[in-house]
Amino acid sequence: MNTEETNQLSPRFDERGLIAAIAQDAGTGEVLMLAWMNEQALTLTIETGIAHYWSRSRNSLWKKGESSGEFQQVVELRVDCDQDAVLMRVVVQGHGTACHTGRTSCFYRNVERQDDGSVKLVFTGSPRVQPAELYGKK
Amino acid sequence: MNTEETNQLSPRFDERGLIAAIAQDAGTGEVLMLAWMNEQALTLTIETGIAHYWSRSRNSLWKKGESSGEFQQVVELRVDCDQDAVLMRVVVQGHGTACHTGRTSCFYRNVERQDDGSVKLVFTGSPRVQPAELYGKK
Repeated sequence: MNTEETNQLSPRFDERGLIAAIAQDAGTGEVLMLAWMNEQALTLTIETGIAHYWSRSRNSLWKKGESSGEFQQVVELRVDCDQDAVLMRVVVQGHGTACHTGRTSCFYRNVERQDDGSVKLVFTGSPRVQPAELYGKK
Repeated sequence: MNTEETNQLSPRFDERGLIAAIAQDAGTGEVLMLAWMNEQALTLTIETGIAHYWSRSRNSLWKKGESSGEFQQVVELRVDCDQDAVLMRVVVQGHGTACHTGRTSCFYRNVERQDDGSVKLVFTGSPRVQPAELYGKK
């Protein structure tokens, strides 16, 4: 099937059964995170309007926000030309953080090349909530 | 090593030797595409300031724009918390298209749930250059 010009959704999951999923802030356009979806996570995301992912580290379905309250309400869901990636415009609930470190976005460091040819990461000063506040003090 | 709070770049390539790379328009904030980088592609991107990817379909290094002129000039390169994804803010050269279909972005279709529970892709009407114009008529 021509995946590019069809109006039929036929996601191409990779050999792990996953597609990449980008979450972008619906208001600011800031890219918040990149994670993964299996077929179940994608279906649940479409049906509920709340972002669901597949956690590769926990090897389980992951309803983002379940432990922190930072649910992602999906305003718009797009698929790319070859249907192996999705892009969501989301409104983040709770404190508005997407990153488990408590930052708004997971992309909080610039990769910068130094004059001597080496590379350093430079923190952008992204707003941050203390993780203890998100997940409760242990 | 703590990948989250370090200023050292230590990308975590997956079992295929790849990390996901998102290109975002530096001006509009539109997410243009998601592709893959191996170590060489990432290094070349950092060193040259032009986006390089790894083509999984061709199994080769891919300097985006080499056949179309639609090079991606990297204005800012970020890495995510666990260092397995990068985000680039880019200025696209040539006609300003990122998608091989001639569209500005690869994400040109919305996934929309119908009243009967089925799902359809709806074209957003993203601006489009005819591919023949990008790649030359065969």
